[in-house]
Amino acid sequence: MRESRGGAVTEPPGRGGYPKRVTFPVVGMVGGGQLARMTHEAGIPLGIKFKLLSDSPQDSAAQVVRDVVVGDYRDLDTLREFARGCDVITFDHEHVPTEHLRALEADGIPVRPGPDALVHAQDKGVMRARLDAIGVPCPRHRIVADPADVSAFAAEGDGFPVILKTVRGGYDGKGVWFVRSEDEARDPFLAGVPVLAEEKVDFVRELAANIVRSPHGQAVAYPVVESRQVDGVCDTVIAPAPDLDPELAGKAQELALRIAQELGVVGHLAVELFETRDGRILVNELAMRPHNSGHWTQDGAVTSQFANHVRAVLDLPLGDPRPRATWTVMCNVLGGDYPDMYQAYLHCMARDPQLKIHMYGKDVKPGRKVGHVNTYGDDLDDVLERARHAAGYLRGTIVE
Amino acid sequence: MRESRGGAVTEPPGRGGYPKRVTFPVVGMVGGGQLARMTHEAGIPLGIKFKLLSDSPQDSAAQVVRDVVVGDYRDLDTLREFARGCDVITFDHEHVPTEHLRALEADGIPVRPGPDALVHAQDKGVMRARLDAIGVPCPRHRIVADPADVSAFAAEGDGFPVILKTVRGGYDGKGVWFVRSEDEARDPFLAGVPVLAEEKVDFVRELAANIVRSPHGQAVAYPVVESRQVDGVCDTVIAPAPDLDPELAGKAQELALRIAQELGVVGHLAVELFETRDGRILVNELAMRPHNSGHWTQDGAVTSQFANHVRAVLDLPLGDPRPRATWTVMCNVLGGDYPDMYQAYLHCMARDPQLKIHMYGKDVKPGRKVGHVNTYGDDLDDVLERARHAAGYLRGTIVE
Repeated sequence: MRESRGGAVTEPPGRGGYPKRVTFPVVGMVGGGQLARMTHEAGIPLGIKFKLLSDSPQDSAAQVVRDVVVGDYRDLDTLREFARGCDVITFDHEHVPTEHLRALEADGIPVRPGPDALVHAQDKGVMRARLDAIGVPCPRHRIVADPADVSAFAAEGDGFPVILKTVRGGYDGKGVWFVRSEDEARDPFLAGVPVLAEEKVDFVRELAANIVRSPHGQAVAYPVVESRQVDGVCDTVIAPAPDLDPELAGKAQELALRIAQELGVVGHLAVELFETRDGRILVNELAMRPHNSGHWTQDGAVTSQFANHVRAVLDLPLGDPRPRATWTVMCNVLGGDYPDMYQAYLHCMARDPQLKIHMYGKDVKPGRKVGHVNTYGDDLDDVLERARHAAGYLRGTIVE
Repeated sequence: MRESRGGAVTEPPGRGGYPKRVTFPVVGMVGGGQLARMTHEAGIPLGIKFKLLSDSPQDSAAQVVRDVVVGDYRDLDTLREFARGCDVITFDHEHVPTEHLRALEADGIPVRPGPDALVHAQDKGVMRARLDAIGVPCPRHRIVADPADVSAFAAEGDGFPVILKTVRGGYDGKGVWFVRSEDEARDPFLAGVPVLAEEKVDFVRELAANIVRSPHGQAVAYPVVESRQVDGVCDTVIAPAPDLDPELAGKAQELALRIAQELGVVGHLAVELFETRDGRILVNELAMRPHNSGHWTQDGAVTSQFANHVRAVLDLPLGDPRPRATWTVMCNVLGGDYPDMYQAYLHCMARDPQLKIHMYGKDVKPGRKVGHVNTYGDDLDDVLERARHAAGYLRGTIVE
């Protein structure tokens, strides 16, 4: 019996061994954000039953899923109740406490990615220590005790500026500080969470290597993409990364596959990378779930990251990750001054009949990610312009 | 104000005229089958709110939609209650009584397609009369009164065999009889529904012209496809139809666009056609909703029929209907002897990582449409083989 088929499957796969009565498996996803929304969307064609643990019935995914449990993922009893009847548990975010995940596993529920893998995406200190141990190139870093220790860390290298990160709880630029002096290094220590110091890398650009790995060890690698950030938030992703040395691209894919294997990742793994001026790649962050740098795959790859994440957590054979177009560009749609973006559809859809809009059903707040657009084609300048125009028009920063 | 934006929109579109607070529209779909399921799936990325009127909470679409009303579409009060809060009503099937649709319109709810269009897909007698009136080529036909009148109809042309159809209530070969003699012509009259007689067309193959039309008159035409039937049920669709004379393909598209305009169709229109041995096209059936002959568009076209149906009923600009691959093939998955097809995923997905599976969440019954698969590529033989293998393996008629 395959673990991933859940309790309903009583016989091994094989044409002779068909059970009399089986049901399609239930995937339980913790977190009601847009990643859960889009994972549900990708699971519908597979006939997978999708169950959601959401903070609120108004959450992005909760709006479009039939089977929603509203509750707090930090409460073990809530998690256990939710997990009953699920064949596998997976995640929209990385915030579920490790000890809760171990408890679910002890209850016999497959958790994918498992707690031993997920901790590397939850705790930047653990992640850096592990990547060091397996020889993965990272920015110079160490845990620092206080502002004076930050000065010492700076002096050990090229001096200030230095990047400080709380080891837990950060995302999209939150929990990250760019400090130019010991004086500026006080805030990160206020939360009482260990602080990681990292050198400010002199990078040419940011890349991301997205791969998906299944419990039996099959893995697929998407083309390496270029990820452009604005104010610490992902703004534009270009697939594949333009003018990337094929050897370096291959190295980045191999690195991501090796990290996934060494850490025992199941599902989607995004490895955010710096491409340095001297032609190296250094690991910036890890995410063990579908990731913003993989949204382009919805319209630009044979199999989307969301579909492959579902297949991976169910231990199904993975789908082809290859691109369907020469270039695909994703631009995030951030909240602007207009409370509703629906009116902008008229202009955007009429201007570009090939435009792919993905909205999350979220209330618009300035700077909040409320959707993204994908465009694809043979001419990168054109593909970029179309995506930027649509994202800007939806936000309200472009008005014609 | 645009009617399609619904009651919540109080100002016309335009960057200066943004309302302070609007909400994305609610599309109400009557019928919980696979077409509603896939329309919901296509609406998620647009942020459209989807509401379903379903016969049962276990229906295909009801399994994956958040906002489901379980009720009988034949009951006007149920329909009215369902329509409250919807910005537009559209359909998974053609069975809602025309007078109920008129009542909803009188209540101020946009119904798309509207009753005056939809009646042509509900009543084959009305459809044939209207197509005659606008000069659309059809098989020779007339309403017949009894078996003796069927003999008379046969004698008026090339004799038996003759096709008999009840004017209402038929689908997938039901409500259709192939009769070789007056003796065989008794059954169709038993239901007390008017019976339409049609000549047995000497056709080379069946084609389908799928178009989508919006209330303001924009329309897009998908490539004309070849549709292969087995026992009166669609088995395989090839897009585009191989070796189709481009002039005839253009004629078929123009015919479908003209029918949509003359009949006032809004949303997706499928025109099923016979290609005759002497190079003509004759209209077989009309369907005013996403259609089996358009399922290939999910993976094979820039914009799927489902996404374009949603855009049309909301009067949004339509998406590009062009193909993304040289060839796309759709094969229906019919129920076979295995009660659950999930186990077959292992083999199918491992054999063909590019395979696109679309299952409907239905219980398997022999002969019932429970899903379909799409394949695409440059080599038609290969694309056909892959789709046929997967559909056959899922059904259980292919075992290796």
